[in-house]
Amino acid sequence: MDVRNGQAYTTATYRLFDDKADFGKKAEGIAVGLTVGSWTDLPEVTKRKMEKHLGLVVSVDAHEPEGAAPGERYADITIAYPDANFSRDLPALLVTVFGKLSMDGRIKLLDLKPSSDFLSAFSGPKFGIAGVRDRLGIQDRPLLMSIFKSVIGYDLDGLREQFLQQALGGVDLIKDDEILFENPLTPLEKRVETCIGAARQAERETGQKLIYFTNLTGPTSKLRENARRAIDAGANGLLFNVLAYGFDALAELANDPSIDVPIAAHPALAGAFYPSPHHGIAAPLLLGKLTRIAGADLSLFPSPYGSVVMPKEENLAVQAALVDEALPLPKAFPVPSAGIHPGLVPLILRDFGGDVVVNAGGGVHGHPLGAAAGGKAFRQAMDAVAAGQDLAEYAKRHEELRIAIERWGVRHA
Amino acid sequence: MDVRNGQAYTTATYRLFDDKADFGKKAEGIAVGLTVGSWTDLPEVTKRKMEKHLGLVVSVDAHEPEGAAPGERYADITIAYPDANFSRDLPALLVTVFGKLSMDGRIKLLDLKPSSDFLSAFSGPKFGIAGVRDRLGIQDRPLLMSIFKSVIGYDLDGLREQFLQQALGGVDLIKDDEILFENPLTPLEKRVETCIGAARQAERETGQKLIYFTNLTGPTSKLRENARRAIDAGANGLLFNVLAYGFDALAELANDPSIDVPIAAHPALAGAFYPSPHHGIAAPLLLGKLTRIAGADLSLFPSPYGSVVMPKEENLAVQAALVDEALPLPKAFPVPSAGIHPGLVPLILRDFGGDVVVNAGGGVHGHPLGAAAGGKAFRQAMDAVAAGQDLAEYAKRHEELRIAIERWGVRHA
Ligand SMILES: [Mg+2]
Ligand SMILES: [Mg+2]
Repeated sequence: MDVRNGQAYTTATYRLFDDKADFGKKAEGIAVGLTVGSWTDLPEVTKRKMEKHLGLVVSVDAHEPEGAAPGERYADITIAYPDANFSRDLPALLVTVFGKLSMDGRIKLLDLKPSSDFLSAFSGPKFGIAGVRDRLGIQDRPLLMSIFKSVIGYDLDGLREQFLQQALGGVDLIKDDEILFENPLTPLEKRVETCIGAARQAERETGQKLIYFTNLTGPTSKLRENARRAIDAGANGLLFNVLAYGFDALAELANDPSIDVPIAAHPALAGAFYPSPHHGIAAPLLLGKLTRIAGADLSLFPSPYGSVVMPKEENLAVQAALVDEALPLPKAFPVPSAGIHPGLVPLILRDFGGDVVVNAGGGVHGHPLGAAAGGKAFRQAMDAVAAGQDLAEYAKRHEELRIAIERWGVRHA
Repeated sequence: MDVRNGQAYTTATYRLFDDKADFGKKAEGIAVGLTVGSWTDLPEVTKRKMEKHLGLVVSVDAHEPEGAAPGERYADITIAYPDANFSRDLPALLVTVFGKLSMDGRIKLLDLKPSSDFLSAFSGPKFGIAGVRDRLGIQDRPLLMSIFKSVIGYDLDGLREQFLQQALGGVDLIKDDEILFENPLTPLEKRVETCIGAARQAERETGQKLIYFTNLTGPTSKLRENARRAIDAGANGLLFNVLAYGFDALAELANDPSIDVPIAAHPALAGAFYPSPHHGIAAPLLLGKLTRIAGADLSLFPSPYGSVVMPKEENLAVQAALVDEALPLPKAFPVPSAGIHPGLVPLILRDFGGDVVVNAGGGVHGHPLGAAAGGKAFRQAMDAVAAGQDLAEYAKRHEELRIAIERWGVRHA
């Protein structure tokens, strides 16, 4: 459906719940209503002029089991929108396919297949999985990310000490808390200098490179400038609350050659979009495909292991979208987050494969011997998996891992 | 709760569904978890340092009727967040109060009460109801807005003719379709010149001023420039798909003295946020309070009369938020949209009061005598209400209204 009669089309798939509607008619209504507005009554000469702007029904897949209870009947509907109707940016695409329609009953946007033509306007992740691996010089194992335990109310010394302990444990990536904004205790440049200083100090001990993702915040028009301020102060990564600013703000940062560090997209506010079966935007599209098209090098999303509720097949679908070969853009690193401890590492790698970032907060800081030991326990767990060894067995000879397992156990499924 | 011990606090109210949870404990967990991270085990000296950053539980209002069915038990929880924790911008506020929390089970953000201190960073609507009325020179009646029937695939002549017919009917405000983006047939400046030219032509006949809301689109970093291009070409209003760009993009436009025309916020994508009872952001906050704080002069939202589904009390709550005297910012014009025809005018005015924009699409263009007659029918309906006359009675002496009522009827409730 990418191209038809020389016209590029972008398709959108919706799940539409309705106990009675004629889904075929609904689909026609969407295809016409969101494009040329009206069709049947147009004069032939107008139809010929308008045809290249007319939306098309690609498929209507109704689910209406015998004796369905009220609320259960739905259809998955795919509509093709002519690219001629919208500019090549994500706000235009989203407003076209789900602007007014989002308010029209029980309808959820499940997927988008942008045309090659539309995608050609996006460079996607500037680094992606391969680029982040290159920056760290690590090709053969999953990456380990940790987050600060507490940041609000801490001064530079407090942040420095937390950073150093995490770094000494052998983590590859450290990210700011997404709720750390510009503040007098740890202002942007000073925070970056402090944390990068701690990273260098740790590197002298561990010999290991580290990326620090500084939270990029502030007014929309200052994002680029703030990113450059952070980078000039030494930041080698940026964290970005993309949904608070819109996908286009991320796309512009990712497309800017002067922002020459990886960007990690944080899913803050995502729960306002994806969890309802009846409304919103599905997680694999929101945190997977769109985040990747917009250019995130890493995408954080709820893990299937913590308290944050996302069905496991949805977690895996987010990951699949981030690394899907069908999308002609660099792959983005999946970062399943929440509830991660060393005893989960074999399961994470089984679920998500080797191109994954193991992201821990409490699992690092809550280690009985401290954060550095927490990081080491994670690295030992990764080593055990790489060596094809049983975690409990391996832990007998690795104290940090042993103590972590005593604390949190091992989870196999 | 605005200020306590000299500290400013911003409160957020959530509805949290859970069949078993101890809601008081949940509330404590939010207040601590989204601010200082941990509290109970902190040393006293740290507590003293951290206290001004600690969130506070303001209220927990549990609804747990005897024999509640699974899924019915909930609590409305209000948490006060110290302003010290976030910068004075809407992304920071939203990420703080509903970033991670949005993903934590069945929870919906119902309301925010930003502190006076936070609000002092916002100028709000530059024109508001009073300013828009002044620009038009209309103080004593509701305003009439109309929208183009079809725009995609039309050239400048096609747009001009549609614009002129609407304007000749006596409408006060004409808006672009929100799905009209930069395109070769009707590029921004040419479109503005064409439509404003038609507005001038109509004004010579009707003697009436008119605001044309040009759709402001394109990359985030070009919004200001595109707005200025439109204004320089003659645009005297802007339409903006705020949710596709984030509230901060609107706040920056509204706060920019060079954008000296009213901005109408379109609710495109809003249905991804508000309709679920269990997730998202409530409509009165999303399309009411936040849109007004961000600086929209007019806010479009689903009317209670059309096919778009929003419970009537929610429509009215959106309107209430737009004009609430408690918010120290200019009021924004409520624009309930969809399904509006002349026979609804008395009901609209009864529901929303006189400070309302009556916004019609099909109700103007679908008039059997054409769009100009459609506009006249609306104005006649407003005159009838102003004169305290029965619509059907008044229609006997006003042909356009009579024909509109024959077509669509009169709705009293
Ligand atoms: Mg966090
Ligand atoms: Mg429209």
